Amino acid sequence: MEEKSIMDYETLALDDEENALVIIDQTKLPGRTELLHLKTQKEIWVAINTLQVRGAPAIGDAAAIGIYLAAREITAEDYDSFCQEFAKAKDYLDSSRPTAVNLSWALNRMEGVVKAAKGKTVAEIKQLLHDEAVKIKEEDIWICQKLGEYGLTLVKPGDGLLTHCNAGQLATAKYGTATAPMYLGHKKGYNFKIFSDETRPLLQGARLTSYELHASGLDVTLICDNMASSVMKNGWVQAVFVGCDRVAANGDAANKIGTSGVAILAKHYGIPFYVCAPTSTIDYNTPTGDGIHIEQRSPEEVTEMWYKERMAPEGVKVYNPAFDVTDHSLITAIITEYGIARAPYTESLQEIRKKCGR
Amino acid sequence: MEEKSIMDYETLALDDEENALVIIDQTKLPGRTELLHLKTQKEIWVAINTLQVRGAPAIGDAAAIGIYLAAREITAEDYDSFCQEFAKAKDYLDSSRPTAVNLSWALNRMEGVVKAAKGKTVAEIKQLLHDEAVKIKEEDIWICQKLGEYGLTLVKPGDGLLTHCNAGQLATAKYGTATAPMYLGHKKGYNFKIFSDETRPLLQGARLTSYELHASGLDVTLICDNMASSVMKNGWVQAVFVGCDRVAANGDAANKIGTSGVAILAKHYGIPFYVCAPTSTIDYNTPTGDGIHIEQRSPEEVTEMWYKERMAPEGVKVYNPAFDVTDHSLITAIITEYGIARAPYTESLQEIRKKCGR
Repeated sequence: MEEKSIMDYETLALDDEENALVIIDQTKLPGRTELLHLKTQKEIWVAINTLQVRGAPAIGDAAAIGIYLAAREITAEDYDSFCQEFAKAKDYLDSSRPTAVNLSWALNRMEGVVKAAKGKTVAEIKQLLHDEAVKIKEEDIWICQKLGEYGLTLVKPGDGLLTHCNAGQLATAKYGTATAPMYLGHKKGYNFKIFSDETRPLLQGARLTSYELHASGLDVTLICDNMASSVMKNGWVQAVFVGCDRVAANGDAANKIGTSGVAILAKHYGIPFYVCAPTSTIDYNTPTGDGIHIEQRSPEEVTEMWYKERMAPEGVKVYNPAFDVTDHSLITAIITEYGIARAPYTESLQEIRKKCGR
Repeated sequence: MEEKSIMDYETLALDDEENALVIIDQTKLPGRTELLHLKTQKEIWVAINTLQVRGAPAIGDAAAIGIYLAAREITAEDYDSFCQEFAKAKDYLDSSRPTAVNLSWALNRMEGVVKAAKGKTVAEIKQLLHDEAVKIKEEDIWICQKLGEYGLTLVKPGDGLLTHCNAGQLATAKYGTATAPMYLGHKKGYNFKIFSDETRPLLQGARLTSYELHASGLDVTLICDNMASSVMKNGWVQAVFVGCDRVAANGDAANKIGTSGVAILAKHYGIPFYVCAPTSTIDYNTPTGDGIHIEQRSPEEVTEMWYKERMAPEGVKVYNPAFDVTDHSLITAIITEYGIARAPYTESLQEIRKKCGR
């Protein structure tokens, strides 16, 4: 464990000796920047399970590296025995966050490498797994880079940009999704003024987004969620960038609770509202946002702060949805790694689909 | 100190022996319902200064009772000496919350009684002060009652009502302003479903509004500020009621930060947005909301929770306005104790002015 700035590291990486997954322990943020060197399957399972690493792309990256490290420990030398051991390791890692789509997606992709490698030696398969894990992470970085480049065409130096929750570098290997235009613009000296909604109840904006942008030298101002209207009215925001968990075929976008409110405020004040969506989040089989299930979470997230201090009366009812759906009519554009989609989304998202070959 | 429910008491009162100001200690809510019996000037000063009693009308009521209790202790028997002692006590209490308008307003009104009573005995003046303090509180209750009656004409049994911050009974002697229609409707069996925004950063909605409504047996659901859009989209809200700190002559209303955002959401979803405003909050000398100064408060209110746990990185910038201004175009009606004003407010608020004789 060492104390470093986020700028010194990627969110997660194979260490130089390639025998550990190195992550920033996100449960210690923003108080401490602490690196963990995870070597065993158990350590990686715990890291994903306890949100030491979180964010859909980052979980996928971590799982891919994790299953590679596990595969390397397999001593079996024949293909069938190797496959059996690999399947066990995969099931174990897959159980760390049951509902995380990217986790299964990455593990299935790694398994696909093993299945396609019948006839090769175990040593060769291990090398292929290494290369695939590296590739998954590189693709993640490439996607974020492209989101940033496209996003950057929509803003200009000196703009005020508002974001909600953490669709940041900490949720990916690098750049983040909603933050990608901010980081890329920062490199080019765009001098953005960023506003970060704190994002109750779990405060990802306060703990993670304002942390990573501040640590990276960007000009970031933290606000409570209910201050966004005031900031916009002051004329301080020229564009809103948010990430998303799922985009329906008509452009309705599910994202962290509060996103739809920000979109309505942006529309009221005439501010463009951009959703940064890797094509992997576009769900062409769900026609509209009405088909997206919204997870309800525990009341204690609202009534207690870090489970230490109660701040609402015992017994009061709480409504605590984790996400909401932003109607496509409120979205100025959806930014993907294959280009920018605008209304009508039913058509423009199909154009994107052709480009990405899904 | 005793443990009771808020339903057993008014927010503040002269005790039965009329030798103490009894208040609910609001700094202990929602964890404990604790009554304080304040007898000395110092105790009352501390109670106002440390927000054990808060809310503009309640502060005025407490100050009036406080200065009466102080006056009763004055031993001087001639008018001039009594006036000197009274002025000292008044200055002392007036220093407890320098910027609270109702504090000075109530103390000045009590001083007016003394000034008008030249020629009367000190014993007679003390009785007049007693009667004026009682009257100030009774007027407060009458105003809230009227706000409730007018507000109740705008809703129907079973409605979902959303409120922001605490413009509740705890901010007044009884009923509150924004909550008055809720309490009066509850008495009539209206069976409202109330949604209480937690109201970051100081959580008055979580700590006070959801507390007092829950303790009073109303059906209240606590939400984070950023969940209001989701609750409205679900069709659960038929009207929004909020209090206000100041209304400009054109109807622009300054209230707790976040209020303007709620108004924009309500307009988007086609939900009426009502401001409950005692005529004392209408500032006819301020033409528009642009003339209302917005207090900026300390960053630590946002970055630390109860000054115990840091939840944002050291050094991050914070924007922390205490209030915002809701444009009159977003307000469906302004409810006063002399009737309901609707657009155009420049005219309708003047009609109210004639009725209240200000």
